[in-house]
Amino acid sequence: MENHDSFVLHGNIIYTPDKNKFISLKDGWMVVEKGKIISVSAEKPASAAGLPIKDCKGKLIMPGFADLHLHAPQFIQIGMGMDYKLLDWLDGYTFKEEPKFADPDYARQIYPIFVDEMTACGTTSSAIFATIHKESTDILCDILAQKGVRAYVGKVNMDTNSAPALTEETAKSLQDTEAFIEKWQNHPLVRPIITPRFVPSVTADMMTGLGKLAEKYQVPVQSHLSENPGEIQLVKELFPQDKYYMSVYDRFGLFGQTPTLMAHCIHLSAEEIAIMAGKNVYAVHCPASNLNLTSGLMPLRKLLDAGVKVVMGSDIGGGHTLYMPHEIVRAIEISKIRSIEHPEEKALRLSEAFYLATKAGGEFFGQTGSLETGYSADFLITDVPDFQQGRTVEEQLQYFIYHGTAQDIREVYVNGLSVKN
Amino acid sequence: MENHDSFVLHGNIIYTPDKNKFISLKDGWMVVEKGKIISVSAEKPASAAGLPIKDCKGKLIMPGFADLHLHAPQFIQIGMGMDYKLLDWLDGYTFKEEPKFADPDYARQIYPIFVDEMTACGTTSSAIFATIHKESTDILCDILAQKGVRAYVGKVNMDTNSAPALTEETAKSLQDTEAFIEKWQNHPLVRPIITPRFVPSVTADMMTGLGKLAEKYQVPVQSHLSENPGEIQLVKELFPQDKYYMSVYDRFGLFGQTPTLMAHCIHLSAEEIAIMAGKNVYAVHCPASNLNLTSGLMPLRKLLDAGVKVVMGSDIGGGHTLYMPHEIVRAIEISKIRSIEHPEEKALRLSEAFYLATKAGGEFFGQTGSLETGYSADFLITDVPDFQQGRTVEEQLQYFIYHGTAQDIREVYVNGLSVKN
Repeated sequence: MENHDSFVLHGNIIYTPDKNKFISLKDGWMVVEKGKIISVSAEKPASAAGLPIKDCKGKLIMPGFADLHLHAPQFIQIGMGMDYKLLDWLDGYTFKEEPKFADPDYARQIYPIFVDEMTACGTTSSAIFATIHKESTDILCDILAQKGVRAYVGKVNMDTNSAPALTEETAKSLQDTEAFIEKWQNHPLVRPIITPRFVPSVTADMMTGLGKLAEKYQVPVQSHLSENPGEIQLVKELFPQDKYYMSVYDRFGLFGQTPTLMAHCIHLSAEEIAIMAGKNVYAVHCPASNLNLTSGLMPLRKLLDAGVKVVMGSDIGGGHTLYMPHEIVRAIEISKIRSIEHPEEKALRLSEAFYLATKAGGEFFGQTGSLETGYSADFLITDVPDFQQGRTVEEQLQYFIYHGTAQDIREVYVNGLSVKN
Repeated sequence: MENHDSFVLHGNIIYTPDKNKFISLKDGWMVVEKGKIISVSAEKPASAAGLPIKDCKGKLIMPGFADLHLHAPQFIQIGMGMDYKLLDWLDGYTFKEEPKFADPDYARQIYPIFVDEMTACGTTSSAIFATIHKESTDILCDILAQKGVRAYVGKVNMDTNSAPALTEETAKSLQDTEAFIEKWQNHPLVRPIITPRFVPSVTADMMTGLGKLAEKYQVPVQSHLSENPGEIQLVKELFPQDKYYMSVYDRFGLFGQTPTLMAHCIHLSAEEIAIMAGKNVYAVHCPASNLNLTSGLMPLRKLLDAGVKVVMGSDIGGGHTLYMPHEIVRAIEISKIRSIEHPEEKALRLSEAFYLATKAGGEFFGQTGSLETGYSADFLITDVPDFQQGRTVEEQLQYFIYHGTAQDIREVYVNGLSVKN
């Protein structure tokens, strides 16, 4: 990683150092050296002397987005079968799509389209479920690495209660997972993450093995938690000795023993929320998916107030968009709906939702997701239409988040390098 | 209107003759003559002989969208101030933007951008609130007429409880409205609609005058109804003698005496819903706006079951998107949320939501919004990516509605004429 450009950006800079406020600089300056942000300032700093200037006047410069939950193989089934409930949808689409990735050529055909689109949408960091297939998962990692974006990728584990074509032999699954970890654990951008699909589709033996791998290699974990009432009931029946759904993961070393992402976290008691807050577990809020699959309205404010780390995910194909501003808007909308019946749960402000989708999520990858000194230079440059040039930078961002599309994103940088086609 | 092309389209045709089903034809044929659809068929019909063939193989052909509630002057404030509640948002943005249209040059600058974007989004029929300013409203109509899209446009009436710069003198407002009606009433595409902003911003005198104009010229009416509890309370205080909010409009001849569009209709009793069902009044569902402004979850299924005519609206700038598929998806999402707490309110299926945004809304303009014999040739041609070519036409539509953007819309036709830039 020696070839990072050093340069200075000059444009409208905006980011959220904490969730309660935007910092914005009209015609500000950002110095990037060897992939890191050196300074952000209103006036041109001395350190900019001699560096090439990238003129972004009239454009917005903001952190790249972090998408902490998504299923790459479901990219091509986006929006399909949304009239069905979860189980029929899984049977009708997901469990027909995912087996296709047994064929590496299929992965070579589909995954590049997915990675191109995710990057064009401004996502610079992601945590991805692939499929159970090791070879296709390696291919996905290769494509991400070549693109130069930041990602945690999981070879999915499933050895029970699953469609036959997606049911693994436990020992082989663990063996493949270990080989996958060893192959990718030292890559600078694309790293392995342990990925039991969710409690109902893994045996106790599988979870025991995965917990050991997490500990041995100190790799993070991702899975699903409390997405819908039927799923929660099923977990209760499968593991009656565990007090809560999360207790199952916890007992096997898959709940914060290493950094852990738990998608959805909708139906949680106050006690469960308190347990989560005390652990290194991130709740991944997936607004579009929660609506599309009638999963429910996540009590985001409650989790934040309790001190749970909350981040955002697109959850394609339960969600239908890789463009994180759509998820930012929906997170706000869902919180507004909740605030009607639960006035104590104050609606999310834009700065908060933006923070969740940038700095909060970026934290999972180290110092990324903000435009502060020492952070990785992972950022976007977006167009601002002529008729919005008179607005404040914060208003320009509001317009971009609510009205923008991937086509408004001109450039995407990771570690100071351009990654958009 | 003598120069309409006659031609044959060959591609994947899809539409909703009723709300319960899609009709789709893979590699089907649609014959257009003089702006009308003559036939839609699986095999090439005899009537196609000698007509030029427009090859849309591998593309989708669907009806154009109908957006039955939107505020054109609010186009440039999309997404701004969404952290605020309704009144602060109106004061901070809307009531600062709308006075600018007192200047016709400002209208000439902004309205073309709005019309281009609405058309690029595939909206072929719309019902638009302009501002109180007659000259700017004429300019908007000129632009729409030149573009060749179908629209009802309202010069807004406001003579009380409004920002000073937006408060009219009653007699002058009525005079301007009548002149506006006379100017546009016979245009083939762009027509006048009587537009009291909503009950709180018009006096009884204004409503009396507007009701008379509606009757004299037999023009339709549009306004707002039961958007939020504070507004409903205000109406009750202003017109204590009227039983319901809708009774005020009704008493002045503005509630179905001519075809009437009422935006929102969220907080309605069973009795009010029954009253609406018996009148020529369309409820305009504006999903994004209702979420953004924390207005509430419209009981769409209840209205449909009661026989109320329901159509869709983007309601920019309360809503944030002119791209009606976004509203289709949100209407489904809102109905799914409602179905959790109200299991008797079955969630909307895609065919239903698509129908509301095409044929149901199109009906307000005559025979438009479907691809049936005798209907106006108002349709879109959209791209289908290579990796979705193996899907059914209905799945391709699902993918487009959930995943598509305006960039996927290649061509837009109204009356058989291309209208997209």
